[in-house]
Amino acid sequence: MNAVDIIIKKRDKQELSKEEINFFIQGIAKKEIPDYQAAAWAMAVLLNGMTDQETTDLTLAMAHSGQMIDLSHVIPNEVDKHSTGGVGDKTTLVVEPTVSACGLPVAKMSGRGLGFSGGTLDKMESIPGFRTQLSEEEFIHLIQTTGLVLAGQTADLAPADGILYALRDVTGTVPSIPLIASSVMSKKIAGGAHAIVLDVKVGKGAFMKNLDDARQLSRLMVSIGKLSGRKVVALLSDMNQPLGNAVGNALEVKEAIATLHGHGPADFTAHCIEVASHMLVVGGKAADLAEAKRTVEEALAAGRSWAQFRKLVVNQGGDVSYVDDPEKLARAPLIETVAAPRSGFIQEINAQVVGETSVELGAGRIKKGDPIDPAVGIIIQHKVGDQVKEGEPLFTIHANDKQKLAAARERLLDAHVIENQTCAPLPLFYGVLN
Amino acid sequence: MNAVDIIIKKRDKQELSKEEINFFIQGIAKKEIPDYQAAAWAMAVLLNGMTDQETTDLTLAMAHSGQMIDLSHVIPNEVDKHSTGGVGDKTTLVVEPTVSACGLPVAKMSGRGLGFSGGTLDKMESIPGFRTQLSEEEFIHLIQTTGLVLAGQTADLAPADGILYALRDVTGTVPSIPLIASSVMSKKIAGGAHAIVLDVKVGKGAFMKNLDDARQLSRLMVSIGKLSGRKVVALLSDMNQPLGNAVGNALEVKEAIATLHGHGPADFTAHCIEVASHMLVVGGKAADLAEAKRTVEEALAAGRSWAQFRKLVVNQGGDVSYVDDPEKLARAPLIETVAAPRSGFIQEINAQVVGETSVELGAGRIKKGDPIDPAVGIIIQHKVGDQVKEGEPLFTIHANDKQKLAAARERLLDAHVIENQTCAPLPLFYGVLN
Repeated sequence: MNAVDIIIKKRDKQELSKEEINFFIQGIAKKEIPDYQAAAWAMAVLLNGMTDQETTDLTLAMAHSGQMIDLSHVIPNEVDKHSTGGVGDKTTLVVEPTVSACGLPVAKMSGRGLGFSGGTLDKMESIPGFRTQLSEEEFIHLIQTTGLVLAGQTADLAPADGILYALRDVTGTVPSIPLIASSVMSKKIAGGAHAIVLDVKVGKGAFMKNLDDARQLSRLMVSIGKLSGRKVVALLSDMNQPLGNAVGNALEVKEAIATLHGHGPADFTAHCIEVASHMLVVGGKAADLAEAKRTVEEALAAGRSWAQFRKLVVNQGGDVSYVDDPEKLARAPLIETVAAPRSGFIQEINAQVVGETSVELGAGRIKKGDPIDPAVGIIIQHKVGDQVKEGEPLFTIHANDKQKLAAARERLLDAHVIENQTCAPLPLFYGVLN
Repeated sequence: MNAVDIIIKKRDKQELSKEEINFFIQGIAKKEIPDYQAAAWAMAVLLNGMTDQETTDLTLAMAHSGQMIDLSHVIPNEVDKHSTGGVGDKTTLVVEPTVSACGLPVAKMSGRGLGFSGGTLDKMESIPGFRTQLSEEEFIHLIQTTGLVLAGQTADLAPADGILYALRDVTGTVPSIPLIASSVMSKKIAGGAHAIVLDVKVGKGAFMKNLDDARQLSRLMVSIGKLSGRKVVALLSDMNQPLGNAVGNALEVKEAIATLHGHGPADFTAHCIEVASHMLVVGGKAADLAEAKRTVEEALAAGRSWAQFRKLVVNQGGDVSYVDDPEKLARAPLIETVAAPRSGFIQEINAQVVGETSVELGAGRIKKGDPIDPAVGIIIQHKVGDQVKEGEPLFTIHANDKQKLAAARERLLDAHVIENQTCAPLPLFYGVLN
């Protein structure tokens, strides 16, 4: 077996065997297959595609290229959730405490934000003292005592995926559905998940811009789950407009806290209930979705979700006074509310522009390692379909720089399309695949 | 402009501009564009194709990536010939002396053999003393005095092509018609050719296995010629069976000498007359092909082609006694003639198997730099369509090792298909494109 023959086979639209895929991925992980061969192969995969079986074999080969985490001695049926990334997506902050409040332990490993997608770790670190780097002992101890932990990756999960992803980024081979699906799933499987709820975002502020691609990606990830013995549910959720109202780290933490107290934005609250309910179903804590929803709503209403969030902050060294009184969280020096320039119905709030503007304000990163300002961000006051009157508040900018604020004002006014005719609200979800 | 955007454009089936192609090829030549980006791009080109204009821009960009030879002060209208490589292809040894005997100076830069295609330099070096590494002064002097010189590349022609070719070889991106066409043409253009006669081989013993691919390649190279201001004629010639009878270095030199004396194999003689005639036409030494053929046949018949070949050997240090008496040339220790195992008509003499067998005997190289034995090789006694009787000579093996001889006997018997029904001879040419 050699790398060139495997490239040629894929170039000629033939199906690769499990042995060939293992050979190629191990070669990448051990740096025995040079970058140029991996790049040619990735382009052939992008242009010629892969079958579900090939994609599953690729997923498992990448998962097994590094440490495989196994928490089954502390969580018999580990359920993970994964969002493909969106604007204003602070779902984890509400869903994980809620799921654990419903009796399903949650051991969440999260990432940092890159581009216009925010990262859960960055958001949680707006709370002074909150630590996301935990030792393995501490991680296990928190699962056992509180049933809830939220940390950065403790191990180098799926290192072959890391190498391949970095290469795809510089060779025009990112937007391949089999390569995206195997990248997501390999990390989840290496992380030890037995069941996975995927929040596949679709729309202007998502990586998947159209429903067809999002459906294909979802279908493929569900199929990888089936072929690899993991339960997978994929929710297709809207990302044409931001999720909830807040975009920016401390602002999103405040919105998550409000939601845990039962007075968050309607769309974001409904979104979290849906995601949490699917987790309970795949985790075997509810017989069906209806029962799961009742359990989730009760945990939120009774304050048990909030109590779990509060414990999470305390356990991981966060200053709990900041979440008890969120007004204490970092506050930007410049805050300006911008009025609607005309009356009418909101036709569009371009999530990509909102996301990019928040990065420009300093809430996100253009490249890995860039510093971020937890205080800055945007509050969008409305949703698509809302009627607005000229002069009423349209959005609020939280900035640390006058020029950035002025630029943000222009971009966000452009991102809002207001016209005379009525406009239907956007759906929260476009479907569920399992 | 950046490399990733250019890769993405080709990935998405868009046409690259001349500026983009220049940027990419200069980046490759200067090693500013890393191998992995060049590899991903080559795979995208292979799978998505290129237009004639893109291929011409690529050809010129590669030609201009190194030294451009200009011999117009010594040869006003330089005509070059190029064979895409075949088995038993000693055409240059007869054609170049003949063309120069007809008054068209020839400055030929040749290569060495690799795989089952022989190399002209290797063949000429069977003549003791013959030097193929010439200084520039010597090269120019021989053109001016004899109108004939045959040497290895004096300069690093089209270095970007060299880098890209080496990368294609290890990334499964060799068989792309635009990449093959631009590779051939870039070296010819960098070598200073104003007109080019291409001998595009097609069949079992050629790189192009089928007529469609060979026609596409020919059409594209003629088009590159038109778009870059060079006259190009492409002859589609058969390579299902070996050309002539001899395969192996000294054996081929002997056959070329016999042909120059007027008693070479009929197919090889006719092939050389055709190629030489086209060179005279594109070089402006004959008004049409009919006139060119008369001139060529006369040069051969009058011994002027032979006289030029003899001068070539003398000029470049070869011991002329070896060509005056070719029996002096290297002779293998083991020579065995194998008889036809049955009577019938020859349906096939598989040129690829003959070529591979000659490499296994030691006449060719598997990788660059491998040593070769000038004496070993094969004489095929027949052509497809011939009637043979059981027991009469079918082929002769010249070997330096008993085991190799035995293995060659088996393979060559398999390469000959003899059956009862008659079989039409193979054509020499399938067409001419210009």
